[in-house]
Amino acid sequence: MSKEKDFTHINDKGEPHMVDVSDKTITQRIATASSSVHLPAEVWTALRGEELMSKKGPVLQTAVIAAHMAIKKTADTIPLCHPLPLEGSKIWTEIDRPYIHIFCRVKTTGKTGVEMEALHGASVAALTIYDMCKALSHDIIIESTRLIQKSGGKNDFKMD
Amino acid sequence: MSKEKDFTHINDKGEPHMVDVSDKTITQRIATASSSVHLPAEVWTALRGEELMSKKGPVLQTAVIAAHMAIKKTADTIPLCHPLPLEGSKIWTEIDRPYIHIFCRVKTTGKTGVEMEALHGASVAALTIYDMCKALSHDIIIESTRLIQKSGGKNDFKMD
Amino acid sequence: MSKEKDFTHINDKGEPHMVDVSDKTITQRIATASSSVHLPAEVWTALRGEELMSKKGPVLQTAVIAAHMAIKKTADTIPLCHPLPLEGSKIWTEIDRPYIHIFCRVKTTGKTGVEMEALHGASVAALTIYDMCKALSHDIIIESTRLIQKSGGKNDFKMD
Amino acid sequence: MSKEKDFTHINDKGEPHMVDVSDKTITQRIATASSSVHLPAEVWTALRGEELMSKKGPVLQTAVIAAHMAIKKTADTIPLCHPLPLEGSKIWTEIDRPYIHIFCRVKTTGKTGVEMEALHGASVAALTIYDMCKALSHDIIIESTRLIQKSGGKNDFKMD
Amino acid sequence: MSKEKDFTHINDKGEPHMVDVSDKTITQRIATASSSVHLPAEVWTALRGEELMSKKGPVLQTAVIAAHMAIKKTADTIPLCHPLPLEGSKIWTEIDRPYIHIFCRVKTTGKTGVEMEALHGASVAALTIYDMCKALSHDIIIESTRLIQKSGGKNDFKMD
Amino acid sequence: MSKEKDFTHINDKGEPHMVDVSDKTITQRIATASSSVHLPAEVWTALRGEELMSKKGPVLQTAVIAAHMAIKKTADTIPLCHPLPLEGSKIWTEIDRPYIHIFCRVKTTGKTGVEMEALHGASVAALTIYDMCKALSHDIIIESTRLIQKSGGKNDFKMD
Repeated sequence: MSKEKDFTHINDKGEPHMVDVSDKTITQRIATASSSVHLPAEVWTALRGEELMSKKGPVLQTAVIAAHMAIKKTADTIPLCHPLPLEGSKIWTEIDRPYIHIFCRVKTTGKTGVEMEALHGASVAALTIYDMCKALSHDIIIESTRLIQKSGGKNDFKMD
Repeated sequence: MSKEKDFTHINDKGEPHMVDVSDKTITQRIATASSSVHLPAEVWTALRGEELMSKKGPVLQTAVIAAHMAIKKTADTIPLCHPLPLEGSKIWTEIDRPYIHIFCRVKTTGKTGVEMEALHGASVAALTIYDMCKALSHDIIIESTRLIQKSGGKNDFKMD
Repeated sequence: MSKEKDFTHINDKGEPHMVDVSDKTITQRIATASSSVHLPAEVWTALRGEELMSKKGPVLQTAVIAAHMAIKKTADTIPLCHPLPLEGSKIWTEIDRPYIHIFCRVKTTGKTGVEMEALHGASVAALTIYDMCKALSHDIIIESTRLIQKSGGKNDFKMD
Repeated sequence: MSKEKDFTHINDKGEPHMVDVSDKTITQRIATASSSVHLPAEVWTALRGEELMSKKGPVLQTAVIAAHMAIKKTADTIPLCHPLPLEGSKIWTEIDRPYIHIFCRVKTTGKTGVEMEALHGASVAALTIYDMCKALSHDIIIESTRLIQKSGGKNDFKMD
Repeated sequence: MSKEKDFTHINDKGEPHMVDVSDKTITQRIATASSSVHLPAEVWTALRGEELMSKKGPVLQTAVIAAHMAIKKTADTIPLCHPLPLEGSKIWTEIDRPYIHIFCRVKTTGKTGVEMEALHGASVAALTIYDMCKALSHDIIIESTRLIQKSGGKNDFKMD
Repeated sequence: MSKEKDFTHINDKGEPHMVDVSDKTITQRIATASSSVHLPAEVWTALRGEELMSKKGPVLQTAVIAAHMAIKKTADTIPLCHPLPLEGSKIWTEIDRPYIHIFCRVKTTGKTGVEMEALHGASVAALTIYDMCKALSHDIIIESTRLIQKSGGKNDFKMD
């Protein structure tokens, strides 16, 4: 993307603004993001069994629901994000000790993409896992929150 | 922390619950978290000057304000987090190419800590930076969201 | 509705997800719900006149406005509800001692129905009536929150 | 409670207001509410096994988390409710075909009670169960949302 | 207030922050604000009777309830406002053609004042009046939103 | 607009309702509002330089971001406002001692206008400026919040 093209759109004073998408085409848009939570050995030892049950309750199920709700609050949280209706969301997790990987996929039909919704969902799932496990250790690190895939906009994207 | 001590508090069915903190002591509590956004070279080239001005407006200032607002929405976002009044928050950033590091410090006087508030603030600042720069590239990665320090609770914490 | 048809859509692990409605048809959708608040005799005696004025102010008007606002927060409250724009809402009440009946009707044009919006609006109106009257008695019961009618989706519904 | 005592507090015009609690004593306050969802036979048949798995995912776990989050949004939803920090919440369910009973218990230390928080949590859990099952039938009824117990205020309450 | 004293607190980079109030004294704090809505003659003519009934419903009652709810959302709306519990709020209106004057009074016990809550409540009441009447004319002006009185902090304030 | 035409839509009991817009045409709609903050001399003296830096941070940038976020919360705040997706927003300010003028422009494609979004954005920017400066003086007045222009609906509007 050329710098020139990009910056013709900037207003003179550089004030923040929500980009005008009124002339963009309505298409079906999908985005998938992931985030990985690194849990130290003492947390893995203490979590009970396959279901990863913590002091506060089941870790993954709480995180998945938190993520679905966060997806819908993205435009309330990220200042210049466009509010838009959503048509579906799906969150899944993979346990790969010492990591829990979270995947978040969002779909809509509209004039702008849903990558921030997917990234926000994955982030909030990761934070919720942190919250559920922090009584056991604070040496938890949320690593590599990133976009995996995106389609339906001007350019598709796929993580290398 | 012994596993036994920990799990006496779990209710029998393992249902998620907001931990009862009514008997905890009221103390001044501080927590600091950080998150690091890795921006690819093409984003650094395109951002204008020291102020990191993007197509949507000034990157860091928008992120800092988003973080202050997110701190106050933590209990709305993380399902089992306690809602509590806050007495101060501070966000600062460091540019260390290819990274922007975000630091978020929160203070309160209460019965439970504010580490989730600090982590949530840092995460939302990172997501906002992503949003401000994503027109330039989607090869942005939010790395290492973690707690740096925490005081005022049963045990202080300091990142190694 | 056959069990087979229903459950082909379930993902393997049974994780909660927001159902994909992207292929559904855009139609005008209407739903109406009701809820009934049973107030004990002492509350009826104490409420002033026809306008049902309580210690906190006018009971029904406060409830009606709370319901309109709740309708718009449905997707924020019910985890897997789709966020969608709304095109109209109407709340009305009937006094039928010892009951106050609340009716809530919502309309939109979209790919999914608004029955949860109508049910949420009726529930919040009922809770608001409870809140306005609870200084007088806690023997208040919210009974029979249900869908009355729904149209515009695959199958219309009408309460028996 | 005498009518006279009650109505000295009403302002002249009967305008709604948030009751002044500044002179009330700070005490530990607990409230428990319940709500019962009546599911028709076809829903019971279609839900898979003990875990009550629906097309959208696990019914009860989703409802329990929705309730915890709703508890914290009570003052945002009920117009004249006081916003207050909370110190713990617990939701549990009982399956008693054809009913699912939800119980919601909330605790705080403050100048005003948490009965609306408990009632709101129970209501939102019931609505979430409705939402999770409504693809199977709309003949679901939410019955008997009520306060079970309350302590810490001027008068304790216990359902007959 | 001397400039020097004021600006010793600013952090070096001038980044926005939520002022640290942890060392301030807990006192009872009250603030009252007002806002005035100027309605053109055609609106006054069209509003029905003393109750100011518009196409959307009763004007003043809707505005008063909107204001009570807005008061509780102040810290969610104003970026660097402290979130705090509230102990009472009262809104009243005066009709003084061509003006509707709104008054909003908020009370809390805490370390920081509630003037932004009072101002936010008055503003939202004014905006709601605008919304209720705008089908009749857009020549409505919200004038003079200001603080009238404030007590309980370092310095009391009273409008001249 | 004739009174008769207007009031045929009112429901009999005059209960508040969200006007049914389902039959209106989808058009591109733009609205621009303004608000003016009068700051006393002592505030102007104390604010540092052209950037208007206050004790809490940069005044105008914080206000502009608060406004963008408020625009998206309009239907959550104004009881009978329709929730709708938005396609762009722009806020700008003019310093004209003793005033700061705020302008807020919002665009969407839909069945109803965005004048309340524009007015809400301008109001919240003004309140944020108040909050950023109130440590210096409470003699700040928010004057003349009004609609400047509106297009795309049945009738265009332009302030005289």
